[in-house]
Amino acid sequence: MKTLASFLAGRWQTGGGTPTVLVNPATEEPLAQASSAGIDLGEALGFAREAGVALRAMTFAERGAILAAMAKAIHGARDELLALATANGGNTRGDAKFDVDGASGTLAYYAELGAKLGGARLLADGEPIQVGRTARMGGQHVWTTRPGVAVHINAFNFPAWGLAEKAACALLAGMPVLSKPATATALVTHRLMEILEPIVPRGALSLLCGGAGDLIDHLRGPDVLAFTGSSDTARALRAHPRVVAESVRVNIEADSLNAAVLAPDVEPGGETWALFVADVVRDMTQKTGQKCTAIRRVLVPGDRFDDAAAALAEKLGAIVVGDPAREDVRMGPVATAAQLRDVRAGIVRLAAATTSLFGGTGDVEVTGVPAGRGFFVGPVLRGTDAPLSCDAMNAHEIFGPVATLARYDGDPSFATTVVARGGGGLVTSIYGDDRDWVARAVADAAGWNGRLYLGSSKMAAQSPGPGTALPALNHGGPGRAGDGGELGGDRGLHLYMQRCALEGDASVLKSLIG
Amino acid sequence: MKTLASFLAGRWQTGGGTPTVLVNPATEEPLAQASSAGIDLGEALGFAREAGVALRAMTFAERGAILAAMAKAIHGARDELLALATANGGNTRGDAKFDVDGASGTLAYYAELGAKLGGARLLADGEPIQVGRTARMGGQHVWTTRPGVAVHINAFNFPAWGLAEKAACALLAGMPVLSKPATATALVTHRLMEILEPIVPRGALSLLCGGAGDLIDHLRGPDVLAFTGSSDTARALRAHPRVVAESVRVNIEADSLNAAVLAPDVEPGGETWALFVADVVRDMTQKTGQKCTAIRRVLVPGDRFDDAAAALAEKLGAIVVGDPAREDVRMGPVATAAQLRDVRAGIVRLAAATTSLFGGTGDVEVTGVPAGRGFFVGPVLRGTDAPLSCDAMNAHEIFGPVATLARYDGDPSFATTVVARGGGGLVTSIYGDDRDWVARAVADAAGWNGRLYLGSSKMAAQSPGPGTALPALNHGGPGRAGDGGELGGDRGLHLYMQRCALEGDASVLKSLIG
Repeated sequence: MKTLASFLAGRWQTGGGTPTVLVNPATEEPLAQASSAGIDLGEALGFAREAGVALRAMTFAERGAILAAMAKAIHGARDELLALATANGGNTRGDAKFDVDGASGTLAYYAELGAKLGGARLLADGEPIQVGRTARMGGQHVWTTRPGVAVHINAFNFPAWGLAEKAACALLAGMPVLSKPATATALVTHRLMEILEPIVPRGALSLLCGGAGDLIDHLRGPDVLAFTGSSDTARALRAHPRVVAESVRVNIEADSLNAAVLAPDVEPGGETWALFVADVVRDMTQKTGQKCTAIRRVLVPGDRFDDAAAALAEKLGAIVVGDPAREDVRMGPVATAAQLRDVRAGIVRLAAATTSLFGGTGDVEVTGVPAGRGFFVGPVLRGTDAPLSCDAMNAHEIFGPVATLARYDGDPSFATTVVARGGGGLVTSIYGDDRDWVARAVADAAGWNGRLYLGSSKMAAQSPGPGTALPALNHGGPGRAGDGGELGGDRGLHLYMQRCALEGDASVLKSLIG
Repeated sequence: MKTLASFLAGRWQTGGGTPTVLVNPATEEPLAQASSAGIDLGEALGFAREAGVALRAMTFAERGAILAAMAKAIHGARDELLALATANGGNTRGDAKFDVDGASGTLAYYAELGAKLGGARLLADGEPIQVGRTARMGGQHVWTTRPGVAVHINAFNFPAWGLAEKAACALLAGMPVLSKPATATALVTHRLMEILEPIVPRGALSLLCGGAGDLIDHLRGPDVLAFTGSSDTARALRAHPRVVAESVRVNIEADSLNAAVLAPDVEPGGETWALFVADVVRDMTQKTGQKCTAIRRVLVPGDRFDDAAAALAEKLGAIVVGDPAREDVRMGPVATAAQLRDVRAGIVRLAAATTSLFGGTGDVEVTGVPAGRGFFVGPVLRGTDAPLSCDAMNAHEIFGPVATLARYDGDPSFATTVVARGGGGLVTSIYGDDRDWVARAVADAAGWNGRLYLGSSKMAAQSPGPGTALPALNHGGPGRAGDGGELGGDRGLHLYMQRCALEGDASVLKSLIG
């Protein structure tokens, strides 16, 4: 069986001990194994940190050129990567493209930003200001690269994009990256590293396949730790004694009970209605509902409830579930046996508090796979008339093809109160063409979300849907979602930079930022 | 004896249990007592949170007008507050002005910013962007108020400015504030609250006098916790289970081994030299060295060491230490008996690794106070030839009138390597008129600091010195300093706001930000 080595301290290294076995989640066939036991992670971090000297000496344009080469190399290996994502991730070809093209696209976006930032090494943060009696005594804020290493711990659902979206921001900002994918789906990430190794400067990108071991124990103040995954792991990382003692900067993307809110003006049959239905179904089924941005809670005015339930059920009924390698299959399995257990348990808890609208508790007929094999669960739509008190809907993320349709009274304040019961999220989508209504909902919902997607008839034809984290827009959310922020154009660089106020003679400040 | 009540849940409340006694640190005479035992802090936070609804409904201009009224009220009570600061804080009149005028000045600065931001409630964060095929599908980042309460835990050294600088940002951003001063010097803060109570909207400003009790246990995701003080307390707050579980946003200003670096081009006797000497002496003695921004490490080229030691010793020798209420006294006591113990112990540790240049280990003749009374320690200047290996200098903040003069070789890389040994700081000052040298030092030092103060002959006449945290400039630093950021003009509001990406029809987005 193939063993996935780690690329650390500038060389491929294989750990000892009992390895974790990676399987095909549709067939449960073993594909590869990985272990990091015994690898010197302190050395790996030290080596990466040292590589920061050369990265910081480069301009944004030079670092951007590296990202461009990375994007090109990934795109060049596209078919191979898509096949690996299907085999190891349970992805349909569409799911795999979402991940792999997302990776190259995000790298290409930041490559362009690098070209735009050009020959600079410091970024001006705002305009020069006067801080003394005369204009001679000035202030100028700048962003400068943090002199550490960026450690990225990613989730199983995006083995390509997860590495790329974080690495794009860190590398462009000038920080070397050590990336740790979730072991279960690391086949794609491992291949990515093989492809990228000849392209990136020595030490600028490292990959840890297998457990994190004592990685966090070796972090230092200027390092950055960015994590995407469950709230439980997020808590452990945030409270890790080393992280706390050194004030290591931490960015978290964790659980999110993303809501979709239908405004009362939206009539069944119109463009906005169709967008709403398509977005909900896409988010429920794309990557088998395993997107941190996927819609989990769907709020519709009471008099639209039956129409919405019927429209969603109709579309969900057309989803063929099975072996994602088949062209006729629209939804594959979840990624691991543990995920399947969690999703099944979540559905049971949710079912106790809701009614069934589609899919019951997730039993499903599977196409192209022998009965009893694979980590399959069908799309499930549940219903509730009591969204405010439905804790099973508001407080427990089910990371699979499951959503709850909830009746509300059409009042934007009520809807946003339900949104807030999620405790802070990555994205809420609001569908409506009544601008005043939308404005009221936005005012109340914005503080609880990292992104608000405003679905309307005007943009329906070219919308990427709420579930797509675009490189140009902030990705992260307050509270339960971890209070982090990634991407968002140049904002995404700031996580890896130190804001520094320069204070002194105005002409000196001017010469420093060029 | 006067008992300091807390202003919580809209009413003055006095706790039970054994109170903490506040004393005059020059005479050890008891002045007041405070306790918070038994006060319902969950109710207090809930009441403040509820007040956020009205604050969020106000415009920036309206909230700015409140700050203007606060600034005016504080300035109107200036003499009374200065006298309290001298009695309870050991402040000379100059020290007290630095605190009290800093409070009113910072509020006035943010009042002006509020007026400038005008009738808005959402702040645009950057320009509109295109995220779809055509300009119709757009994105717009905004900053919106977090729907929680801002909890401020302040240090003993700035009882007026500490409350005001944090409250100015939070209130202008639209968040209600619950402020907890250090009990030992809370007399000024308590009087401030009495003065401000009739001016601020109900629930917008609360004050907790006495221990923090179970305050943190009641925090929620949208709340913000901002702390200034020791690294030990900072660690406990950051790792508090409630903070971690709810992703409460935390901002820390902690220990900082601020450095001053003299460039080799600076000749004794010139303007830049004089600025350097005056800044070091001011930072060592102002507020008896109890400023988080004070210079602790002074790096000079080897051939300037003797001149620098002599110039500093001469100025330090002229500092009269004693009862700060006397006009002839230039430096008062440290604030508490515990501080005195810590400073004395720090000097002993530092003395074991350095030579004496002035003041020995801090014994001093005290003016106007009976022998043996008060928490006095004299200015102490130590010296070292081995700055890189002098851990006692680089890794242990002594929060009193103590600095170490260190010899270096004149190379900017060496100097900034020593700066970095501090593990991240609030401010480093660099004195020099050779722009290339300064540029090289800035490039290496900026990532380790929240602010770089560039002293030169051009700005010497109007410099506020590196120890002054101006409202227009970032205050905070990476690593040991806590990786926080406050003030910095509009940047200071962002701690209390949620960044949210709005995505949708471009004309809808435009109408939302007005």
